[in-house]
Parts: sequence; structure tokens; C-alpha cells
Amino acid sequence: MKDFLLLTPGPTKVPERILQKTAVPMIHHRTKEYQAILERVNANLQKVFVTKNPVMTFASSGTGAMEASITNLLSPGDTVISISAGKWGERYRDIARAYSMDVKSFEIKYGEAVSPFQVETALREHPQAKAVLVTLCETSTAVVHPIEKIANITQKTNALLMIDAISGLLCDPLKMDEWGIDVVVCGSQKGFMLPPGLSFVAVNERAAKAVLTSKVPKYYFNFAESLKAMKKNDTPFTPAVSLVRGLDEALLMVLEEGVDNVWKRHAEISAWVRSKLSGLGLELFSKAPSQALTAVVIPGGMSSGDLIKYMRDTHKVVMADGQGELQGKIVRFAHMGAVCNKEDAQRGFEAFHDAIIKVGGLKGERV
Amino acid sequence: MKDFLLLTPGPTKVPERILQKTAVPMIHHRTKEYQAILERVNANLQKVFVTKNPVMTFASSGTGAMEASITNLLSPGDTVISISAGKWGERYRDIARAYSMDVKSFEIKYGEAVSPFQVETALREHPQAKAVLVTLCETSTAVVHPIEKIANITQKTNALLMIDAISGLLCDPLKMDEWGIDVVVCGSQKGFMLPPGLSFVAVNERAAKAVLTSKVPKYYFNFAESLKAMKKNDTPFTPAVSLVRGLDEALLMVLEEGVDNVWKRHAEISAWVRSKLSGLGLELFSKAPSQALTAVVIPGGMSSGDLIKYMRDTHKVVMADGQGELQGKIVRFAHMGAVCNKEDAQRGFEAFHDAIIKVGGLKGERV
Repeated sequence: MKDFLLLTPGPTKVPERILQKTAVPMIHHRTKEYQAILERVNANLQKVFVTKNPVMTFASSGTGAMEASITNLLSPGDTVISISAGKWGERYRDIARAYSMDVKSFEIKYGEAVSPFQVETALREHPQAKAVLVTLCETSTAVVHPIEKIANITQKTNALLMIDAISGLLCDPLKMDEWGIDVVVCGSQKGFMLPPGLSFVAVNERAAKAVLTSKVPKYYFNFAESLKAMKKNDTPFTPAVSLVRGLDEALLMVLEEGVDNVWKRHAEISAWVRSKLSGLGLELFSKAPSQALTAVVIPGGMSSGDLIKYMRDTHKVVMADGQGELQGKIVRFAHMGAVCNKEDAQRGFEAFHDAIIKVGGLKGERV
Repeated sequence: MKDFLLLTPGPTKVPERILQKTAVPMIHHRTKEYQAILERVNANLQKVFVTKNPVMTFASSGTGAMEASITNLLSPGDTVISISAGKWGERYRDIARAYSMDVKSFEIKYGEAVSPFQVETALREHPQAKAVLVTLCETSTAVVHPIEKIANITQKTNALLMIDAISGLLCDPLKMDEWGIDVVVCGSQKGFMLPPGLSFVAVNERAAKAVLTSKVPKYYFNFAESLKAMKKNDTPFTPAVSLVRGLDEALLMVLEEGVDNVWKRHAEISAWVRSKLSGLGLELFSKAPSQALTAVVIPGGMSSGDLIKYMRDTHKVVMADGQGELQGKIVRFAHMGAVCNKEDAQRGFEAFHDAIIKVGGLKGERV
């Protein structure tokens, strides 16, 4: 009997090699053995974030790291430019609002990417802005935003470019240092092929300086303490030891393949999935498709929930519905991390194809 | 070859049965399968906290949950009575200070427990106090505070009794409802026998009301959202799925044995360890010993670090040094959770005995 195949946009399938590493006997975190793991993990995280900057690891889900980037780098009253085009951009915006920042919200139509010109205009309108918040892959719409071009603009200003790369990292290319990004936030259960429970924040020098002036109270998520502890291969608080051991293995897997090759694999598989779904005569929702997942528009009269239920019950293939106003209207077919391979994408496509004929009533000859 | 035996006060050994459950194939958290797990986990957590109140689970280490209890139940300027007698009580106090509360700090001598009379006096001096912060087991000194008697006092006031039970729960008895405790904070890597990475907060009705008036900004740790989501067997943010599956198994193990029997086992093993260490002519540091761990004073001229290193290198037994000003002066021998059994305690004692003779030069005949 086949196992369930998780083609949801996180958590994704965790390779057996990584799962087993999370289940080795527990070690204490204030030991040379753990320090050696953390030293390797910290160095390898830099390779994956394509940066020489420190990459902090926290025991939390990705939202915790998003919040941490706001509370550690900004202060109440700071002007913050939020660029959102879906649920995740809105979350970053809402966190800044929760901390009484003066948020200038630029909301792009769902399915579209922000244009660098819009960012330029926003910064001209609000030259006092301390930060620009953008998502790499907006998982709710399968859009990838043009981060490199946005970074070209923000680099020339005093605003920090803060990227939520939770679902995008290791799927869509991102070069922190080369592009000039100040802050990159990530989570473990997407491109990293890990269970959820770890989050990451990389900060460049400009961002590290902002840590010194931030006036938001904080304790658990404390960049100053984390950056200090990292120098001794330590963490301020007890780390999620078993997940960090899984991370160690995941990073080795990624680096064995090579970050460029991981991106190339996502480029190829995502192009294949898009071409197969388009070949069914269906519209793709994203005008700027991410390599992490594909969102396909379900024709009127059909409900994406019915298709998803059928795929799950009949094929043991799990995809995700749209979120918020997109619920019922799109199916999100992820090809991120460990499920980004021809075999899993093929199984996903076959399940979808069967569902849209059997449940949706799409005529076979359109295929 | 023997495995390392972790007799540190957390993380502790994780039983194979639990480890394997953390490594089963990943499932998505917005599914009936996960909801069924969460429903069982939430019900079983109540049995372990001996309460009918909801017990929230977070993806974070214990410090995150300590902070969450402060940021969700109190407001800047609130008077908070902190009772501390070691590093962990001080941490709770420092978190309240970080959030600009008016902290009245009552510092008890290390090694001693607070007397209920001191709490009564503190509350009489500061009748406006919104909360009293106390630790169940102060892991840095191996002291257990008299929570039941303190709860008798706080119940008659408007102050919430907030207990950091991170290392104490499931080792030292604690009956949330019967004793009248308002808030209990815990972590996964101690009595729960799990890897670190999960934390818990139980709130009674009085505390749930305080959630509604708290003015500290928050996002990731949000009790209002968590309590609402729990009613649908959901969580506001992606949970640490693999650790929650381990938690499910750990709770089954605890309930198979029975919470009363777990406490009894800790009472018996801790008494045995204390009697063996006292039998060597050594002084115990705690005047009110916890059942979670024993702190033994290392006679002048010896360094606890040397004993610990010898035990580790020669016996593969790992104990902890003192923290802060107690470093070098005490050895902390934990008997919490999965290592609270005669065999592990015996192996720990033999390693310690050998170390104190070979490294410390204690005469054999004193044994």
C-alpha cells in the first residue's frame, strides 16, 4: 500500500535519512558534541542562504521568526513599507502593526507580483521608511516576487529589505549578499525538508546595527543574545536538539546536491507541472510563478475542496486548497524540497488529472 | 559499549518508544488525522497537569512559554511579585522586568525554599499585585517551593499565581485545580521525556480573563488565538508536528503508569539518591529537596567540573555543574522523567562515587 504523498506547501515529506537523524539518542546541548554539530550547521546554513552573514536558528515555527525580525530590528512608530499580495505578505504587515509601527501597506492584486517600480515609488513617498517587508514566495498565490530588483532599489536607501523566505528558500533562487538583502527569514518544513519547529533569521551588518537601536521589549527572540551566543557555538536558550540534528543532515543533503542544482531541479519540475496543468486547458493563478508550488484555477462549477478530497481518498495524494477568499477556487500543488522530483510530481499530476475528470467532469479529450 | 547516560536536568534521555514516534512519516497539520492526535494530546495534557483547564502547546523552548505567560496576562506597569531562589526564578523576574512591569523582587537564599509567610507578607506590602511568580522546582539549586501553601494564600487575593513548572512537572507533585494555581508553565525535555522544542501553558478561568485586558503587544505567543483554535483542535500557527507526535506517545506512557505512580517513583528514587550521597558524608545543597534532581556540595579543594569530566570520560555518565555563582561548587544529579529508575540512578551513583574517590581524593572508608 502506498504511503500518503504530501504535496502541500509545507509541511512536506521528510526524507527517511533526515527522520532517522531526528530520532538518535538525545544529547545535552552544552557539550562539545553538540557544539560541533552547531558549528557545522551554522556554517552550512550560510551556504544555503548564500551569505557570509550569521544565520540564527530558533525553536519556533516560521511566524515566530517573522515576529522576531520585526521586534529586534524596528521600534514602535517606525515607518514600515509592507508589500503584500496574499496571506503571507499580510501576516508580515499585521505583525508590524501589532507592534505599533506606522505601516504603509501596498497591496498588490492576488496572483500578481509587485513591480520594482512600485517599491521605488513607495520609498519615494515615504523616504523615512526604516524597512520594506516583502515575501519571496507568496505561498497563498504561488507568486514569486522580484527580490533581486527590489534589493537594487532598497540598497540605495536607509530602509532595510526584510524578506519572508519561509516557503521560498531552496526553491526559488535567493542570494542574500550578492543581491543586497538585509534580512532573510525562513522555516524548516519547506525547502529544508524538515519537520516544522525550527526557524531561521539571517541578518547583514546593516540589520545587526538596527538591533542595537530597537526599542521593542523582547526576551525569547533576542538577536543580540543569539548573535553573541553563536560566536561560542551556543544558543541563549535550550535548542530543539533533535530537530537541529535533522537540520544538520538536511544541510548535508542539500550541499551534496549543490544549492545551484537544487534550484535547477525546482526550475525543471515546476516548469513540468505548469506545462502539464496548462495542457489540461486550465488557467494557472500566478502571473509570476514560484518554483515552490503551482496554483491552478479550478473552473467555475467545480470546487477545489472536492478535488482535494478525491485525490486524498483515492490516490493518497494531499494537495492544498486556496486560503481566505481563494478557498474553493484554486488547488495548490507543491513541488518543494523532498517532493520536488519527477516521480512525486508525476503521481501528483496523475491524481489531479483523474480528479478533474471524475469529480470535476472535465472532458477527457481536452487532455 | 554503553551509551552515554544523560543525568543532566534536561534534556533527559528520550525513551526509544517516543523517539521512534517522532520519526514516523510527516503528516499535514490541517487534517483529520492530526486533529485526532491533537484532541487526544490536549485531553491527556489536562490529566498530567491535573486540571480541567486548557493546556496550550507551543513550538518553543520553555523560556518562550515563560515569556508568553507574562506578555499575555499582564501589562506594563503592573505590580508583579517575583519570588526567586536561583537562576530560574530570576529568569521569570527578568522577563517581567523586560516588559516594564513594576517587579517587587523577593530573593531567597540559594538552597532554601520560600516560606508561605514570606509570600503572605509580600502580598500585604503590595496588595495591588497582579501576579506572583514562583518556580516549582528551582533546577539551579534542586529546591522545590511549597506551591500548595502559596496557592492557599494567593487564592484569597486578586494576584494570579504563575508557576514555572518547567523542570518540576511530573517529578514534584502539582495539582493545578485542587491547589488553586492560576497558570502553569512547562517544557518538554524534563518530566515529559521528550526532546526540547515544545512548551506548555495551562490557564484557569481567572487567568483567561486576564488575557482579555493584557496590553503587551504579541503575535506568535497569543493565548486568545490559541485558546480559540484549541476548541477546533487546531493551532494558530504550524505546530511542531513530529514533536507533538512524540508528546502523544509520552502522555500515553505517563498515563499507563499513572500520574500518582510517576510522582511516587520520583519520590522513591530521589530519596535513594539523597541517602546514598549523604552516606558518602557529603552535604546536600537543597534544604527543601526536589524530586527532580539532587544537588550535592563538593567539598573545598575539589572542583565539580573535574568530577563531571571524569564521569563523562570514564563512565559515560553526564551530570551538570552548578550555574552562576554555584559553578564548580555543586554537582547536579538529575533523576527526572525517563532516567528516574533504579538502574540509571545506580549507574549515576557509581560513577559519582568512583569520581569522588579517584578525582576528589575522598577516602574510601568514608563510604
